[in-house]
Amino acid sequence: MKILFVSPDPKPERWITPLQAALPDAQWIAWHAELPPQQADYALVWQPPAALFEREPGLKAIFNLGAGVDALLKLSALPPTLPIYRLEDAGMSAQMAEYLLHQIAEITRAMPVYRQQQQQQIWKMQPPCRRQEWPIGFLGLGQIGHKAAQALQLLEYPVACWSRSHKQIEGIHSYTGTGELAAFLQNTRILINTLPLTPDTAGILNQTLFVQLPANSVLINVGRGQHLVEQDLLEALASGSLQQAVLDVFAEEPLPATHPFWSHPKITLTPHISAPTLREETIRQITDKLKALAQGQPITGEVNRQRGY
Amino acid sequence: MKILFVSPDPKPERWITPLQAALPDAQWIAWHAELPPQQADYALVWQPPAALFEREPGLKAIFNLGAGVDALLKLSALPPTLPIYRLEDAGMSAQMAEYLLHQIAEITRAMPVYRQQQQQQIWKMQPPCRRQEWPIGFLGLGQIGHKAAQALQLLEYPVACWSRSHKQIEGIHSYTGTGELAAFLQNTRILINTLPLTPDTAGILNQTLFVQLPANSVLINVGRGQHLVEQDLLEALASGSLQQAVLDVFAEEPLPATHPFWSHPKITLTPHISAPTLREETIRQITDKLKALAQGQPITGEVNRQRGY
Ligand SMILES: NC(=O)c1ccc[n+]([C@@H]2O[C@H](COP(=O)([O-])OP(=O)(O)OC[C@H]3O[C@@H](n4cnc5c(N)ncnc54)[C@H](OP(=O)(O)O)[C@@H]3O)[C@@H](O)[C@H]2O)c1
Ligand SMILES: NC(=O)c1ccc[n+]([C@@H]2O[C@H](COP(=O)([O-])OP(=O)(O)OC[C@H]3O[C@@H](n4cnc5c(N)ncnc54)[C@H](OP(=O)(O)O)[C@@H]3O)[C@@H](O)[C@H]2O)c1
Repeated sequence: MKILFVSPDPKPERWITPLQAALPDAQWIAWHAELPPQQADYALVWQPPAALFEREPGLKAIFNLGAGVDALLKLSALPPTLPIYRLEDAGMSAQMAEYLLHQIAEITRAMPVYRQQQQQQIWKMQPPCRRQEWPIGFLGLGQIGHKAAQALQLLEYPVACWSRSHKQIEGIHSYTGTGELAAFLQNTRILINTLPLTPDTAGILNQTLFVQLPANSVLINVGRGQHLVEQDLLEALASGSLQQAVLDVFAEEPLPATHPFWSHPKITLTPHISAPTLREETIRQITDKLKALAQGQPITGEVNRQRGY
Repeated sequence: MKILFVSPDPKPERWITPLQAALPDAQWIAWHAELPPQQADYALVWQPPAALFEREPGLKAIFNLGAGVDALLKLSALPPTLPIYRLEDAGMSAQMAEYLLHQIAEITRAMPVYRQQQQQQIWKMQPPCRRQEWPIGFLGLGQIGHKAAQALQLLEYPVACWSRSHKQIEGIHSYTGTGELAAFLQNTRILINTLPLTPDTAGILNQTLFVQLPANSVLINVGRGQHLVEQDLLEALASGSLQQAVLDVFAEEPLPATHPFWSHPKITLTPHISAPTLREETIRQITDKLKALAQGQPITGEVNRQRGY
């Protein structure tokens, strides 16, 4: 079995060595643009170039080194029936939960105020956080968001979600489909976007949506930059329908130096780090799946090309 | 039934009105220094003056408006057999969990670096947090810490605790007594103190303890200021046995303006806000207990005067 590792990572040996150790029977090859055709069986990919698919027509499946496949599905060179497996959690949901809990505490617990007070040697308690004033809603609640939802419930926040199919999660109010979006938004003050980017969800974070939230709401976008209509966010922050936005993903990454988000007083931004791909967990998940495939067993995580996620 | 509310809160009516509503059969009285004896049955207290106990010798029990009773037990006027009930969680453990998770993410996820990068328009990913490098240990794991321990486990951190009696909590390594303190410390990198202040625990956060932690450990003190030997902390931060300290409690509160902690680059401090007493939850818990007592039922949360907590 020949397996390619296809990634812009400048040190592919950081992956190849442990991959080879985890699945020694396979022949692991770090792919690069000059490599002749290998007749490979599988490929692990992150932002693969079109040339890969031209040179390797015999691929039986590819494994995406991330949860989101929006960029991959846009590649015109991608064979239309090639099975794609996305990363399923693989430690990312714990990282995401931590990121979200941190950013939420920044806001509901006035942490920036306490940092400033320390600098000014001021001893002053800010009003405590009453949970019922901060209902939290997840736009999309799949692999990436589920631990955050659980942890926020444990912290006694009211938690709801909106998705295509109904979710049966103890204590979490589940809204589904476009018909229930308005009710979901009315009952959400901290809106967390963890949707995948698809034709149905692109641009969903727009003015029409923002005005349905209660006044002084908070937007946290950890889905994709293209979910957000940037001008509408700036207007919602100016009008007060949003009091704050936390953004980890952007339509253009790295975010251009001239972008107004960088210095906006009501925007906290991070460079797409909310839930990084963790090497060890990723290698374990993918090699486990490759072993299962070799034994003819079914595996999970196949992308539905029709739905786009 | 006559019940006193005894607190330095400048607006006691914020408490009296909902207390009266929750337990209308009782007569609720905001106590103050000029009030003549009331022959009260119970008192809800926070930092009560000695005069209270002189004027109200008929009290059958008192309810402390917080979890820690160290200050109360130091009052020489406190009748030696008067039953004391402490607050049990009452929403505090969710607040504490949130505070701890936030402070831990500040450190393990390099959040201050990302804030600075935003100001300088720098797009750069910091090394991801590998959980196995950050084992977390609770010194004392009772009502206040249990939700934090659960949430940190959900976030996939290794979690252990040290207490007097053995704890049977799934996934949490329980160390007990002085004999196992060294082993606990060797396996802890983020040390969270949630002990009650007693003669046994005063000054426990000292040089002897710090040097048993791995290099570059982190101390988070949310117990009491008197647990910490302040000079030893400064030395541990200077020598590198600790890389960082987060302090919410201090031997003298408010922390004096001239104190070196305020401007120490390796100390984050907050003004005793990690787990504030929440009015609604506190009122519900105490009035529920008063109702149970009135019906002759047993109630939990009585302080063991011998142990001091
Ligand atoms: N910032 C980061 O570091 C980071 C890291 C990882 C992932 N992400 C982003 O997070 C996204 C989600 O990842 P995941 O692993 O959680 O995916 P997932 O398990 O497939 O979950 C996706 C969720 O979105 C819902 N959804 C999809 N289309 C919808 C629509 N049109 N209307 C309503 N709900 C819809 C799904 O509903 P059903 O359950 O009903 O299908 C599901 O609840 C990824 O695609 C990626 O863009 C970001
Ligand atoms: N910063 C804040 O805002 C804030 C808020 C609330 C409370 N606190 C502090 O947190 C403290 C703990 O509150 P809690 O409600 O969690 O108390 P708790 O339920 O009584 O728990 C105390 C824990 O400490 C352990 N312990 C006590 N003495 C010990 C000793 N000598 N050696 C080893 N372990 C010992 C106990 O062990 P066993 O279980 O074996 O008895 C128990 O696990 C309070 O006393 C207060 O000082 C701070």
